[in-house]
Amino acid sequence: MTADVEAGTGRDAILRAARRAFTLRPYAEVTMRGIAADAGVSASLIVKRFGTKEQLFSTVTDFGPAADLLFDAPLDELGRHMVLSLVHSRRENQADPLLRVVFGLGNQDERSVMKERFREQVTARLASRLEGDERRLRAELIVGLLLGLGAAISLHRPDSATEAADPAHLADLYAPALQALVVRA
Amino acid sequence: MTADVEAGTGRDAILRAARRAFTLRPYAEVTMRGIAADAGVSASLIVKRFGTKEQLFSTVTDFGPAADLLFDAPLDELGRHMVLSLVHSRRENQADPLLRVVFGLGNQDERSVMKERFREQVTARLASRLEGDERRLRAELIVGLLLGLGAAISLHRPDSATEAADPAHLADLYAPALQALVVRA
Repeated sequence: MTADVEAGTGRDAILRAARRAFTLRPYAEVTMRGIAADAGVSASLIVKRFGTKEQLFSTVTDFGPAADLLFDAPLDELGRHMVLSLVHSRRENQADPLLRVVFGLGNQDERSVMKERFREQVTARLASRLEGDERRLRAELIVGLLLGLGAAISLHRPDSATEAADPAHLADLYAPALQALVVRA
Repeated sequence: MTADVEAGTGRDAILRAARRAFTLRPYAEVTMRGIAADAGVSASLIVKRFGTKEQLFSTVTDFGPAADLLFDAPLDELGRHMVLSLVHSRRENQADPLLRVVFGLGNQDERSVMKERFREQVTARLASRLEGDERRLRAELIVGLLLGLGAAISLHRPDSATEAADPAHLADLYAPALQALVVRA
């Protein structure tokens, strides 16, 4: 396992275990030892790499890098870019850039921090990129479309027709809906 | 509380508490007593109304009534009907007809039953209604759009522009994407 950690896969295992822990349990019940056991590493290694439990939580709830990736295109190509980069990111990292926020939807405790950061880092940032009327409403609906695409894939695994589809074909089918909200006709 | 139960609101409180319990904890850890305490009723009342824990779980994971409601329109009006009935159902029942399935996405235990029933009662049923090519893929993407709409509303509460929008306006913005997948151009 030490070799894995040095090669960088341990980092992913820790982050995956941390996401699982923080989304399934109240914040107060999450322990570094529990996350370490789930990830197959020592608690002291997690502290060395990610700091305190609070810092680890903050890393897990940071949607900034996901937004950087998803919104990195001019407005007239943004719909297609978002679909392709979401699918690419899922295939490369075996994780959806946005979908983890839905696990916090039913919760009232510290996990509501995750929703607040999402609204600021994803929805508000997207709204500030848009032009024209109803930017906030359109940004919320675009975010919904992106979450929906991720949910459709995850929900129908391992036999998801969406997951099996060619990304360019998926963009043909799904991106027009996004683009119609990015730039109003 | 007894008067409430007789008036039917207790039924909703029990179902809400049961959904919460089954989505936040492993099946084996869920107790009727815990659900009763959360709903503010007695465990014996729950047993009287819903039967055993297994039967209550089955009631909570039944997406049949939601599908009856969402799919009750001819194909050429289905996109708009799905948006309007989802929004209406959320406003009437303070609950999303489909969204609870996302809480089971990260889980490998008994809650995977919820995903299986969803796939059968919602996605497969919708696919069987569609005509033309790629019915399964289109049904998955339509399901994604519906989950995304619910997630957009829930995620941005209590200040959701989507929730505040007029349902007919929301249908104008969001239904064309659904309809393009229902009936291919």
